Amino acid sequence: MKRKKLWGGRFDSSNAEITERISASIDFDARLYRQDISGSIAHASMLEKIGVLTHEEHRKIVQGLNEILSEIEEGNFEFVRSLEDVHMNIEYALTQKIGDVGKKLHTARSRNDQVTLDLRLYIRDECTEIRMLLETLIAELVKKAETHLEVIMPAYTHMQVAQPVRFSHHMLAHAWALVRDMKRLDDANSSSMVLPLGVGACTGVNYPNDREFLKEKLGFLSISPNSMDTVSDRDYVLDFLYFAAVLGMHLSRMAEELVLWSTSEFAFVRLSDAVTTGSSIMPQKRNPDVAELIRGKSGRLYGNLISLMVTLKGLPLTYNRDMQEDKEPLFDSVDTIKLCIEGMMEMIVSMEVKEEAMRVAVFSNYSTATDLADYLAQKGVPFREAHEIVGSIVKYCENNKIDFFSLTPSDLKSFSDVFGDDAVSVLNPAFSTERKLSRGGTSLREVKYQIDLIKKIILRRE
Amino acid sequence: MKRKKLWGGRFDSSNAEITERISASIDFDARLYRQDISGSIAHASMLEKIGVLTHEEHRKIVQGLNEILSEIEEGNFEFVRSLEDVHMNIEYALTQKIGDVGKKLHTARSRNDQVTLDLRLYIRDECTEIRMLLETLIAELVKKAETHLEVIMPAYTHMQVAQPVRFSHHMLAHAWALVRDMKRLDDANSSSMVLPLGVGACTGVNYPNDREFLKEKLGFLSISPNSMDTVSDRDYVLDFLYFAAVLGMHLSRMAEELVLWSTSEFAFVRLSDAVTTGSSIMPQKRNPDVAELIRGKSGRLYGNLISLMVTLKGLPLTYNRDMQEDKEPLFDSVDTIKLCIEGMMEMIVSMEVKEEAMRVAVFSNYSTATDLADYLAQKGVPFREAHEIVGSIVKYCENNKIDFFSLTPSDLKSFSDVFGDDAVSVLNPAFSTERKLSRGGTSLREVKYQIDLIKKIILRRE
Amino acid sequence: MKRKKLWGGRFDSSNAEITERISASIDFDARLYRQDISGSIAHASMLEKIGVLTHEEHRKIVQGLNEILSEIEEGNFEFVRSLEDVHMNIEYALTQKIGDVGKKLHTARSRNDQVTLDLRLYIRDECTEIRMLLETLIAELVKKAETHLEVIMPAYTHMQVAQPVRFSHHMLAHAWALVRDMKRLDDANSSSMVLPLGVGACTGVNYPNDREFLKEKLGFLSISPNSMDTVSDRDYVLDFLYFAAVLGMHLSRMAEELVLWSTSEFAFVRLSDAVTTGSSIMPQKRNPDVAELIRGKSGRLYGNLISLMVTLKGLPLTYNRDMQEDKEPLFDSVDTIKLCIEGMMEMIVSMEVKEEAMRVAVFSNYSTATDLADYLAQKGVPFREAHEIVGSIVKYCENNKIDFFSLTPSDLKSFSDVFGDDAVSVLNPAFSTERKLSRGGTSLREVKYQIDLIKKIILRRE
Amino acid sequence: MKRKKLWGGRFDSSNAEITERISASIDFDARLYRQDISGSIAHASMLEKIGVLTHEEHRKIVQGLNEILSEIEEGNFEFVRSLEDVHMNIEYALTQKIGDVGKKLHTARSRNDQVTLDLRLYIRDECTEIRMLLETLIAELVKKAETHLEVIMPAYTHMQVAQPVRFSHHMLAHAWALVRDMKRLDDANSSSMVLPLGVGACTGVNYPNDREFLKEKLGFLSISPNSMDTVSDRDYVLDFLYFAAVLGMHLSRMAEELVLWSTSEFAFVRLSDAVTTGSSIMPQKRNPDVAELIRGKSGRLYGNLISLMVTLKGLPLTYNRDMQEDKEPLFDSVDTIKLCIEGMMEMIVSMEVKEEAMRVAVFSNYSTATDLADYLAQKGVPFREAHEIVGSIVKYCENNKIDFFSLTPSDLKSFSDVFGDDAVSVLNPAFSTERKLSRGGTSLREVKYQIDLIKKIILRRE
Repeated sequence: MKRKKLWGGRFDSSNAEITERISASIDFDARLYRQDISGSIAHASMLEKIGVLTHEEHRKIVQGLNEILSEIEEGNFEFVRSLEDVHMNIEYALTQKIGDVGKKLHTARSRNDQVTLDLRLYIRDECTEIRMLLETLIAELVKKAETHLEVIMPAYTHMQVAQPVRFSHHMLAHAWALVRDMKRLDDANSSSMVLPLGVGACTGVNYPNDREFLKEKLGFLSISPNSMDTVSDRDYVLDFLYFAAVLGMHLSRMAEELVLWSTSEFAFVRLSDAVTTGSSIMPQKRNPDVAELIRGKSGRLYGNLISLMVTLKGLPLTYNRDMQEDKEPLFDSVDTIKLCIEGMMEMIVSMEVKEEAMRVAVFSNYSTATDLADYLAQKGVPFREAHEIVGSIVKYCENNKIDFFSLTPSDLKSFSDVFGDDAVSVLNPAFSTERKLSRGGTSLREVKYQIDLIKKIILRRE
Repeated sequence: MKRKKLWGGRFDSSNAEITERISASIDFDARLYRQDISGSIAHASMLEKIGVLTHEEHRKIVQGLNEILSEIEEGNFEFVRSLEDVHMNIEYALTQKIGDVGKKLHTARSRNDQVTLDLRLYIRDECTEIRMLLETLIAELVKKAETHLEVIMPAYTHMQVAQPVRFSHHMLAHAWALVRDMKRLDDANSSSMVLPLGVGACTGVNYPNDREFLKEKLGFLSISPNSMDTVSDRDYVLDFLYFAAVLGMHLSRMAEELVLWSTSEFAFVRLSDAVTTGSSIMPQKRNPDVAELIRGKSGRLYGNLISLMVTLKGLPLTYNRDMQEDKEPLFDSVDTIKLCIEGMMEMIVSMEVKEEAMRVAVFSNYSTATDLADYLAQKGVPFREAHEIVGSIVKYCENNKIDFFSLTPSDLKSFSDVFGDDAVSVLNPAFSTERKLSRGGTSLREVKYQIDLIKKIILRRE
Repeated sequence: MKRKKLWGGRFDSSNAEITERISASIDFDARLYRQDISGSIAHASMLEKIGVLTHEEHRKIVQGLNEILSEIEEGNFEFVRSLEDVHMNIEYALTQKIGDVGKKLHTARSRNDQVTLDLRLYIRDECTEIRMLLETLIAELVKKAETHLEVIMPAYTHMQVAQPVRFSHHMLAHAWALVRDMKRLDDANSSSMVLPLGVGACTGVNYPNDREFLKEKLGFLSISPNSMDTVSDRDYVLDFLYFAAVLGMHLSRMAEELVLWSTSEFAFVRLSDAVTTGSSIMPQKRNPDVAELIRGKSGRLYGNLISLMVTLKGLPLTYNRDMQEDKEPLFDSVDTIKLCIEGMMEMIVSMEVKEEAMRVAVFSNYSTATDLADYLAQKGVPFREAHEIVGSIVKYCENNKIDFFSLTPSDLKSFSDVFGDDAVSVLNPAFSTERKLSRGGTSLREVKYQIDLIKKIILRRE
Repeated sequence: MKRKKLWGGRFDSSNAEITERISASIDFDARLYRQDISGSIAHASMLEKIGVLTHEEHRKIVQGLNEILSEIEEGNFEFVRSLEDVHMNIEYALTQKIGDVGKKLHTARSRNDQVTLDLRLYIRDECTEIRMLLETLIAELVKKAETHLEVIMPAYTHMQVAQPVRFSHHMLAHAWALVRDMKRLDDANSSSMVLPLGVGACTGVNYPNDREFLKEKLGFLSISPNSMDTVSDRDYVLDFLYFAAVLGMHLSRMAEELVLWSTSEFAFVRLSDAVTTGSSIMPQKRNPDVAELIRGKSGRLYGNLISLMVTLKGLPLTYNRDMQEDKEPLFDSVDTIKLCIEGMMEMIVSMEVKEEAMRVAVFSNYSTATDLADYLAQKGVPFREAHEIVGSIVKYCENNKIDFFSLTPSDLKSFSDVFGDDAVSVLNPAFSTERKLSRGGTSLREVKYQIDLIKKIILRRE
């Protein structure tokens, strides 16, 4: 039995079956039930305040909505596709429950302001959760850095060994990117914290709505200033999708490194059994699936952002039904980003750092060539010349298949008489990191400074 | 109770709960059960042929698989997340059902070739369905053209009235775009018709697999020539996603026009009640929601394409777990494109063409100005000059707020003495279309030629 | 004659010609010359401060750089492709000009921190310009609103006439979207205001760089905290590209409306000759090309964002040459967004508002149906019922081809006896807007409030 | 001095300066001059054939156009922005040169069919060039395979050593992906090979255009069947952009491997000095910049595709000025893809394969574990059990830090008494590849078969 549409007044015949299939959103927007009910309760209170509802009507509506909330949370509520969306499903259930007074709830609002309200509240709720996850991930990276302060590894540029660096410094590099993501998350959150409710379908309502009251009641920061813009605007969803896409990009870079470091060729870390899987065919395999999936999921995070941007392109004001397409990408990005943060956290926490492999890599790849050039530069050789001299030394070593540590002082002097006997000590990677003393460098002092700084940032915001 | 992973030999401890959540694909890949079972039956037959399975083993496996197929189709099969994916769920059920012989089925194949087999079969199956839908939509556009052969409306460029055109010609313009989409669909289909099964995990298998047999059995067109490429390749999925994105773009253009034409300002068509919806707040509204949703869904179709392209970017050979991200965008694009075609079909079939409104529009907007310029050009005035003369006539009409039909022969002659008394007849839109006689023009003869041509294309391919 | 590469020490043979073609960036990064020279001057001052350069060396370098700046600005400088990029071109010219002391400039920095410095300074400079343009566009929208405060038009949802609205309110709706864009622009600007210089290639430098000094000298807000992150990070470019993409989306929506409103069917505005063009073939055409191009350019703004996001996906730390691909999308988005704002401004300033056409549209499309339903609701009819009653009235009018203004009080009463004699006055659109009194509504009071608010926002920030 | 627009008849005032800046395309579409002139010559011949031009007029026009062609190719032609685009620039020059007869050239065509003609011809010309480049790259991969037929390396799945494979097989895997790209290129080419000329602005022309003649003259495969669709359609540009994006994806995967293989950790190849660059700061660096840039340029190739797809989304028929945005992404993708193919070719041709490093990697990572499991399976152990047994052997080896080659027959027997004395020989990677005998496997026979096959494909098409 088909329930009558709530907007059917002027229609002669009912919708085609395909219309229902293409337009019903209840399969995905049911997820907004909590926000929808909160919004309706606030709206009912406002209607009472301005005299549209009596005290008793208000009481009944609130009680009815709370009962529906419980039913949904306990799994005793059936969402029906012919009622289109979460708003209609709940309103219909309310009227079934408390009678005609339920129909008064929709006074002085429209689905256009209601749906954007729900979505804004949803984003706020999810931002809170995601922020906690992000902070925890940053904290785990910092902890990993702290427990491995002395481990030295190669820093790479162009995937070629560049210079010695602390493993802790490398972990913190990722942490700082995530700190920027927290900023973008906060921006997305405040984008969403503007009250839309009370503008009706697009031009305002024929009632003295108290939007200041609604703002306070629902915890928004400000009130949307223009009714047409209010129902047209999905910037706040884009801001969230953008945050998620950039975070996904950062996580894809971390994941890429974990995949690389887990190869037998690098062998810089051993991911735990908890986050690796085997092969159905190759018994020796330990695959870094979680890292790969996180890397791969950047695709859908980008796709979700593009998806909504395309939908909004070229739409005239105000609400157009195209905008219903805002929800699925949002929900998918929320779910994906939470999975990815949790997966990354599990890997970071449980991974074993193979200090010896890192040590070998940093000692055998001329990682201190820059230090040697700087040695010359500090003795007055123009840097460009020093660079050329050290280039020749590297070529000499390569041709003779030796590393820097086989070079004697006299070997060095044969390339430039500026080299003193102390020059060979410059070649030691362990000393190299300690020369990086200015802000942001990889010396122990500076790494500790970073750790303090980042802890303050996380703590301050909690 | 947790089922043992099928690859657990060398692992000390089990997976973290997040690992299962992020990596299990059964929630979406269960959709491939039919293809998975077909592939397994073909594989079992091949294994019998090369002597790996006895006749009896083969019989048991095939029977078991068919029973599982029935159970799934009847809703009596429970997919379990701890068994990760559709392949493992079915194999596990098979072994539960027929004992150890079930374990032999996975001989000489790997999940890497199995999953790409399933996906290729899935695309083939869906292409068949989608092709039929597309042909039907094209047929409906042609039918609409045929039943309105004489209706004349403005053709627009830059959304400004350009020249008179037959409504049928306009319908056919969209049909031809869809004919190109059929070509892209066929291309995607043949991309997928290359047998991957039999290459194992990445280098081939240690068995004399008869891939020619598999190809015939499963109805593929050719055999993948390189094992590494076979398990790395997702081009065929991209080809489908690209087809769907371009089709989505075409449908967004048709939808845009239906939205425009349904405005009270254009009022060129009236969409049926079956595909329009009302407003919960504004009683007069008849909203073209289906058209809007189709227009908006171009976003997700683009997003799905980008999503997989991003996932594949920069992946080294061969299979990487990132590639599990190929399925959800594919499934979503399949579902979306079917919805969109069906929705468009419903609108086209049931829409009412408002001939009078079209007539008014084409008569009142100087739509025959080009014809007038061509009149002069054919009498020897260089076209650029003729263009200027007619430009002045239009300006004159605008300033005097009259349309072309108020102009007398002597009015025209005051702008150029090349105008004869017959010039005013050129201003009639109804004659204008009949002058467009060369191939592709909007004259009746040419429109009928198009209709014949397009019918042959659809019929030939059926 | 080929100039020697500045990094050639260990290389036996020179680059292939394709290497130069694919990797040289001078064709596009020459645009950064001003920022590169500013950065170098600041760096030289810092080197003097920490004793790496003598006073005289510093003087020579600064003078040399300033001379190069003048030469470039006067068009007397030849950028050479074999010198790869803007940094190398300027450094080479410096050394040609002042001799070996020029080679000292690159002490304690690397191209990795230099290039991100230049880009950050560039974004800052452009943000300033773009902000002024945005403010001016907002101011023009406000001015248009102010000069047409009393004009009433239909507000549309789903492109169907919804309710009467002030034209000024509609203009302000777009202005508010741009206010959000200013926020995103400011966010992008502050993302870029972090000093990268002084971290060297990736781990810090072997010199006591005074980064605090550099920060002050160059006007940055803070210092990048981690050297590896510093050279890996392009978030600030993404933030700008995202800002530009969303602004482009907003402008595409405004442009879409201008295109629609310029059709002969709507005819709500007449764009000036200054921003419309004709057809080479159709003499009557006045095409809104500027609006169309702005709408179309959303494509490249989206494409530029995706482009860099894809490039960064899955890159391991730290600098990889892939990141050279950050510049062209940035430059293109900067140029595009400036063109689009200027084009939109020209259209808004010069467009003629056709009040009468708007009036006709709002009076003939049952735009006050909601007001009528609210009339009933305020007399105690549950809104859902009121909605149905008015739906029937609309159907009645449509069937009889009359508009609301032909209805008599007794006509209304035949649908519901709640209607009083005053009900017909509710049908007047001119009264409808004045009932929208709550915050954000389209009543005159509220529109004026918005204008004040938006003026304060622009003034405060100037 | 400003030249008069060719469409200015009805306009009172001239365009704003921003209108010219935003709408002029001559800065980028000048590139189409050759195609524009070819098209115009064919059009002139057709006009002569149908009697619109006399023999003498035709001769003058063709001669004039050929002179302009020479002037442009010799650098003696000045393109002027106020003339907007390549079409107007050439037509204006023609009229300057041969007088009023030049104005007749534009009879029976419009810029709408002219511009899509030029673009189609351009794509055809570029497809020919790109196809040759692609074939050469494939040929080089095949040659690399042929000269290293015996080299064995690890195949990876999930970046973990999977099984032994021939290096030649790996090279061919990439070659096969490129063969698919050739197919997509051919598809894009045939998409573009449909004659658009002769449909005028959108509805056909008032002349008996001989489009069959034009088709033959210009070498197209068929004639566009519908005038409105003809000027609206940019599918053929999308098809090219899609081809380029997927090829870019494939190249990014090859590039990723070259970057990985060039690390000191893998050291599987040494890229030549011709395609690597140094660091301005670190003297030891040899960076694989060309590989990185190719990997990074996938971003712009994706961005270009998305860019045009977004522009076309939701556009009503027929030509809208938005579509001018089709050219720059196309030109950029053409240039980029050629650079990338050439860069990849240079790397492949000149790279040194380090056989010993590959050998070490394949011998030390349990790469034959699957072979060992298959050994058991072929002796009757169900594969799933065999997998577990070998899993335990790997764990034993890892715990004891030994590789497979230290295992004695009795070691093996302690895990399963099915192992015979011949089992140890299974552990040799050199034997493993030869067991992969079915189609697509990595045995020598099958690799040679692939080489023959791919050579036939390239030769057949040449």
